[in-house]
Amino acid sequence: MYTLYYAPGAASLVVHWLLLELDVPFEARRLDVDAREHKQPAYLALNPAGVIPTLLVDGKPVVETGAIVALLAARHPDKALMPSAADERYPAFLQAMFRISNGLQPPFRHWFYPQDITDESGTDTVKQKVRAQIEGEWDRWSTWIGSSAGGYLLGGQVSAVDFYLTMVMRWSRNMPRPATDWAPLAEFAQRMKARPSFAELYRREGLTEWS
Amino acid sequence: MYTLYYAPGAASLVVHWLLLELDVPFEARRLDVDAREHKQPAYLALNPAGVIPTLLVDGKPVVETGAIVALLAARHPDKALMPSAADERYPAFLQAMFRISNGLQPPFRHWFYPQDITDESGTDTVKQKVRAQIEGEWDRWSTWIGSSAGGYLLGGQVSAVDFYLTMVMRWSRNMPRPATDWAPLAEFAQRMKARPSFAELYRREGLTEWS
Repeated sequence: MYTLYYAPGAASLVVHWLLLELDVPFEARRLDVDAREHKQPAYLALNPAGVIPTLLVDGKPVVETGAIVALLAARHPDKALMPSAADERYPAFLQAMFRISNGLQPPFRHWFYPQDITDESGTDTVKQKVRAQIEGEWDRWSTWIGSSAGGYLLGGQVSAVDFYLTMVMRWSRNMPRPATDWAPLAEFAQRMKARPSFAELYRREGLTEWS
Repeated sequence: MYTLYYAPGAASLVVHWLLLELDVPFEARRLDVDAREHKQPAYLALNPAGVIPTLLVDGKPVVETGAIVALLAARHPDKALMPSAADERYPAFLQAMFRISNGLQPPFRHWFYPQDITDESGTDTVKQKVRAQIEGEWDRWSTWIGSSAGGYLLGGQVSAVDFYLTMVMRWSRNMPRPATDWAPLAEFAQRMKARPSFAELYRREGLTEWS
């Protein structure tokens, strides 16, 4: 049994989406971010860094978006959302998972919350540099997807890391150059958004932008 | 067959260490960072972001430190450096792997290369904020290790993520508060450094600091 702590449009989105895609039972608990519920003792007891999401798996908290994505894929092998360790696509799966975690999520954090890393006088410079990093990432992801023989990161079959990438692409929607400025990424986004689980996710989280 | 592209003390260290620990055949190719060999076309063809390390696995490049660590552990199950997906320690393994990738490596990047995210006038502020983030991480990792019933992240048995954490702890050695200022982390470091593979790693990379 799963319990997801989420906020609409936050990094919990990929977990929520995968739970729907996997079609497994779960309870979704919405956090009131405006009231800073994710910084209150009850939530910090589950997630000491006070970040979103947390997934309770059989009552035990698991944190870190990438870890939860990988865990859900591994726990439901019948849904084939990740290759097995013996599969020749396994190194690419791991590489994409960790690249999103290490190289793509962190610059977005600085884009949205520059005050965490600089003061007011430094905000413009940080955002400018971070924007260039993110656009460099889109160059590389676009090349990857564009040279894939089936439209997904691992070829013709969708995997958990495609959902993860789509979520982060969504975060760029109001940037000067959103991910969808890169044609292969725009096509990829269309393909992912056509999944029935995406419409259901939007309905449940009450989202409208980038639909 | 493995070929590792490395630079002494860089993020390749954990890969080099694991290859020695696993006792598998590999070739190590040292990159001349001062000559910016990692930004030359030959290396960029393997690793488009021009970062270190790259591991060739049967001739194919795999990049992203966390991915390589997870891949090596998965490819050598006989060495038991990671729990299986069915193991109750598997969520904690993933959580630790992705937390290092997403929450610990990125602030170190800003600590060592603040110019990548700010200009000269903003360097002190960035370093101050990043230092606080890193120290907050040590608080949490120290609590984790200190409450583990066996001295390693997953309990009494060492796993690949212990090597990964030790490498990043090493990067803090010249900071105002190195990781070893936290007693549980200092004890953990001693335990990890006592492994014969650590001495061999230092010999091969020509390292002396934090020995």
